[in-house]
Amino acid sequence: MSDFGKGADNAGGSSEENIKHWDDFYNEVPAPANYAEIISGVRKFIGDAKLEERVVVVTSGGTMVPLEQLTVRFVDNFSSGSRGAASTEYFLEEGYKVVFLNRQKSIQPYARHISSVLDVLELDGGANVTVKSCHASKIQTVLERYEKYKTSCFAITYESLGDYLWFLKGVSTELNSIGARGMLYLAAAVSDFYIPKNDMPEHKIQSDRRPEITFSLVPKMLRPLVKDWAPEAYIISFKLETDPNILLQKAEKALKLYQHNMVIANMLTTRKKTVTAVERTGEVMKIDNDDEDKEIESLIVNLVKEKHSKYIQENLTKSPLP
Amino acid sequence: MSDFGKGADNAGGSSEENIKHWDDFYNEVPAPANYAEIISGVRKFIGDAKLEERVVVVTSGGTMVPLEQLTVRFVDNFSSGSRGAASTEYFLEEGYKVVFLNRQKSIQPYARHISSVLDVLELDGGANVTVKSCHASKIQTVLERYEKYKTSCFAITYESLGDYLWFLKGVSTELNSIGARGMLYLAAAVSDFYIPKNDMPEHKIQSDRRPEITFSLVPKMLRPLVKDWAPEAYIISFKLETDPNILLQKAEKALKLYQHNMVIANMLTTRKKTVTAVERTGEVMKIDNDDEDKEIESLIVNLVKEKHSKYIQENLTKSPLP
Repeated sequence: MSDFGKGADNAGGSSEENIKHWDDFYNEVPAPANYAEIISGVRKFIGDAKLEERVVVVTSGGTMVPLEQLTVRFVDNFSSGSRGAASTEYFLEEGYKVVFLNRQKSIQPYARHISSVLDVLELDGGANVTVKSCHASKIQTVLERYEKYKTSCFAITYESLGDYLWFLKGVSTELNSIGARGMLYLAAAVSDFYIPKNDMPEHKIQSDRRPEITFSLVPKMLRPLVKDWAPEAYIISFKLETDPNILLQKAEKALKLYQHNMVIANMLTTRKKTVTAVERTGEVMKIDNDDEDKEIESLIVNLVKEKHSKYIQENLTKSPLP
Repeated sequence: MSDFGKGADNAGGSSEENIKHWDDFYNEVPAPANYAEIISGVRKFIGDAKLEERVVVVTSGGTMVPLEQLTVRFVDNFSSGSRGAASTEYFLEEGYKVVFLNRQKSIQPYARHISSVLDVLELDGGANVTVKSCHASKIQTVLERYEKYKTSCFAITYESLGDYLWFLKGVSTELNSIGARGMLYLAAAVSDFYIPKNDMPEHKIQSDRRPEITFSLVPKMLRPLVKDWAPEAYIISFKLETDPNILLQKAEKALKLYQHNMVIANMLTTRKKTVTAVERTGEVMKIDNDDEDKEIESLIVNLVKEKHSKYIQENLTKSPLP
């Protein structure tokens, strides 16, 4: 049996206690096979950023939590990756370089505008494959933007919670090298629960009786992220709830607890129309999108860019560039 | 609390007891919003089949089981839908009409051969969108086959376990109208567990303590499928295990219990290389695919087509066409 994540309050536990949790987690869950290669790519990507350029790490999609060691079943979080993919496009257009840490098969920037390849192509009488004329102009616009920005985006895919948390740690540590110009935009829907390997059955759970499954709590990674991995970056977390009565209160509690910069709070049912951004300063900003032709992510990115600019300015004043 | 699915042995329970389970399930889980429209489309699709044509219902992909009423988290079954999508193509080429009951966003027939639309298209100097020459010939072949067969395939998408089981019941009942010419090829990875609505929390489970989740067993739908919904069709179920020691034994037990026609047994790790088909007659047929350029689904479809032909012949002898 695993020792950690089982307390009633690992979020608010003492600092030492929590550090033990993170260490235990990374000791127990193996790094993804391509971890070293990916992180070295990220290091180069961030290192190549010009002095005035900003880099944002956008996390996107849900995380998968296996219920069996040879995994047939898993718990997942509802998230198509729509917010992360849309935000990535707006960040790129605002001049950011983007590390796009996304769940395998989640919605992708640019590609999301084109439904299915079989719907947009046709055989023109003879044997030539062509783009249907009704789709041509939209696809042209999408392709132009994709070509323009593709070298400014470094994509990493994950599937399991474990892979996600390994990459988050590695990438945010690299991001810290550019100080306040770095931003973390944590839009992924990360599981709060998991089953430690030692508590997991090896084989597929048999269906001859009702399974009772007890989960362990995932250590709250915002804490080491803010304190140790990327203390200089501007860090934005997302809070999704279904109960409106606890949403803002939970956002404020998280800011107080983890001391990061912003929480973007949203409700499951209205998340495409309205979100509320809360800064650690106490400022509460409601963003409503009434324009059907606009995506709320363009408004969110505008706001966080402005806040990030202010943050960079403040930090420059504190410790000017060499 | 819900009453059903809680016994230790709902698979092997008495017939009356099981019928209660199915009724309870359908009483409790609402039908998908588009149910009537879809089933009426299926009725027309199957009704339009010519007298010598065969129809196969291919189920494909995993089923999602919500953990909360306003669903943020869910349990899913590992399945990309690869087997169902590939098999659908081979059935179409063998002259079958196919009802493709597939999980939303699972792998699709034909489209599966083309990676991403952004990878295959390019802007040719000016503003024209064209297919990259390196992809042109492959896409041409795929499009030709897609165009040829698309009217022979009726696709239905589902996401939750509840929607899947509603469609399965409705579609198989329609299939029964063409007697032995109908086949069910149940390749979907269907959850054995779920949480009845009354046992489910309304809101997102909070992460301040370790959740313990007790699942109920999903009633075994193969029983009413064989007995009541499509008693005249040739029915093939799939069995996926991770433990080789129990695989064949479980396949034989299922055939004895449900009295359908075939189980295709496969192991999680070797399922693309080898499967074992077991007929109710006791015949055991191992299919190995050593040819890297061939998909094992082409061999599976060859075998089941042959067995289906024999089944049709036997049933014609029993009750000749009017």
